[in-house]
Amino acid sequence: MKIYDIPGFPNPLRIRIVLAEKRLTSEVEFVKVDLPAAEHKQPAFLAINPTGTVPVLQLDDGTFISECTAITEYLDNLDGKPVLTGANPKQKAIIHMMQKRAESELIDAIGFYFHHSTPGLGDTLRHYKYPDWSGRAEWGNLQREKAVAGMHYFNSVLGSRPFIAGESFSMADITVWAGLLFAGFAGIALPAECTDLSSWHARISDHPSVKSPA
Amino acid sequence: MKIYDIPGFPNPLRIRIVLAEKRLTSEVEFVKVDLPAAEHKQPAFLAINPTGTVPVLQLDDGTFISECTAITEYLDNLDGKPVLTGANPKQKAIIHMMQKRAESELIDAIGFYFHHSTPGLGDTLRHYKYPDWSGRAEWGNLQREKAVAGMHYFNSVLGSRPFIAGESFSMADITVWAGLLFAGFAGIALPAECTDLSSWHARISDHPSVKSPA
Ligand SMILES: N[C@@H](CCC(=O)N[C@@H](CS)C(=O)NCC(=O)O)C(=O)O
Ligand SMILES: N[C@@H](CCC(=O)N[C@@H](CS)C(=O)NCC(=O)O)C(=O)O
Repeated sequence: MKIYDIPGFPNPLRIRIVLAEKRLTSEVEFVKVDLPAAEHKQPAFLAINPTGTVPVLQLDDGTFISECTAITEYLDNLDGKPVLTGANPKQKAIIHMMQKRAESELIDAIGFYFHHSTPGLGDTLRHYKYPDWSGRAEWGNLQREKAVAGMHYFNSVLGSRPFIAGESFSMADITVWAGLLFAGFAGIALPAECTDLSSWHARISDHPSVKSPA
Repeated sequence: MKIYDIPGFPNPLRIRIVLAEKRLTSEVEFVKVDLPAAEHKQPAFLAINPTGTVPVLQLDDGTFISECTAITEYLDNLDGKPVLTGANPKQKAIIHMMQKRAESELIDAIGFYFHHSTPGLGDTLRHYKYPDWSGRAEWGNLQREKAVAGMHYFNSVLGSRPFIAGESFSMADITVWAGLLFAGFAGIALPAECTDLSSWHARISDHPSVKSPA
């Protein structure tokens, strides 16, 4: 298998954590995509993933899979023993629900803020991000507020359970953790009153696959 | 089980189609949520789904599941014979990828256009949709363009396969079909040149669970 990504970036890290968790690191070859140069917005990459984002998984039969949720479904089910996406209908449902909230209320909102209201990854990429839209910075700022509300929401969730989707580490924890990493890059601080989220963060940062991703 | 939704709306229909496909209609009691009155933005409903959207599934043990993907994972796996979310890792991956594209490039983009650049569901709900943000209509119009590009994308996908995620009907077809329904409400026409998408649409509209949803 091949993974097209860029080391250290939040969404790629989600999959590098999955690879470590599933002990699949040695099965994968990494291909670097130059995001600041907007390589992912050029025709060659858009043929691989029309949405123009990384990571992308390429199977040995050539099939390209984009979207972290889809890649995680693949890798987690390969050995028939899913641990990150749920082993029964109720677990699958709660994990997919919480992981979706982690995207819409946190990591994606931070991405919009980062690319629209800060210098983001620089001028080359901004050209592909509605450079002429007068409302872009205001839009990004609304997304920043959404992300901060998202932090408070996940803090409240963690008041009554040890992991984002319940009693065990899952895809939803990985997305929230990557969201907080992205928040750090983007200069959005974790509110001091989010103490449950903060102690969860310290604990997850020590989880083996998070500490040593692929 | 209970479903909180409103009949005839695009995202609720996704789940009503799943219920019919899985022959679970008689297992479910429907609870109507008054969207034009913004019932879904009031504290009582936000306690059920903090994201403030329908549909929401309530399990018999009281657990609330929001997000169509999560609800579909639950219902499709209940009998241990998934037909809409994939039966092996590769199918799961392709279905989740295509379904996510159907949300981001189509149904969600149309929702943003509908609520920000048209009268949407009226004044009561608009109050919850950034009424004071000067860029809202322009933002919605950019999302309309994105949705039209999404139609062209799905049209191209259907040039080489009968269903959105491959050889059989899946969750991804349901999302694209609901997206086109929403496009109709919102006054976004299917471009005449999207002939493969148009003939797929006619065929899917005749699929039993789509023709007779719960
Ligand atoms: N929903 C996507 C998000 C992927 C994403 O946004 N990745 C970032 C890197 S962290 C990216 O490609 N950004 C490039 C851009 O926005 O131009 C997924 O789950 O894979
Ligand atoms: N991603 C959500 C989308 C749900 C959604 O947007 N539903 C619409 C009804 S079609 C809604 O609740 N709209 C209310 C609003 O936007 O205020 C899902 O998959 O369930």
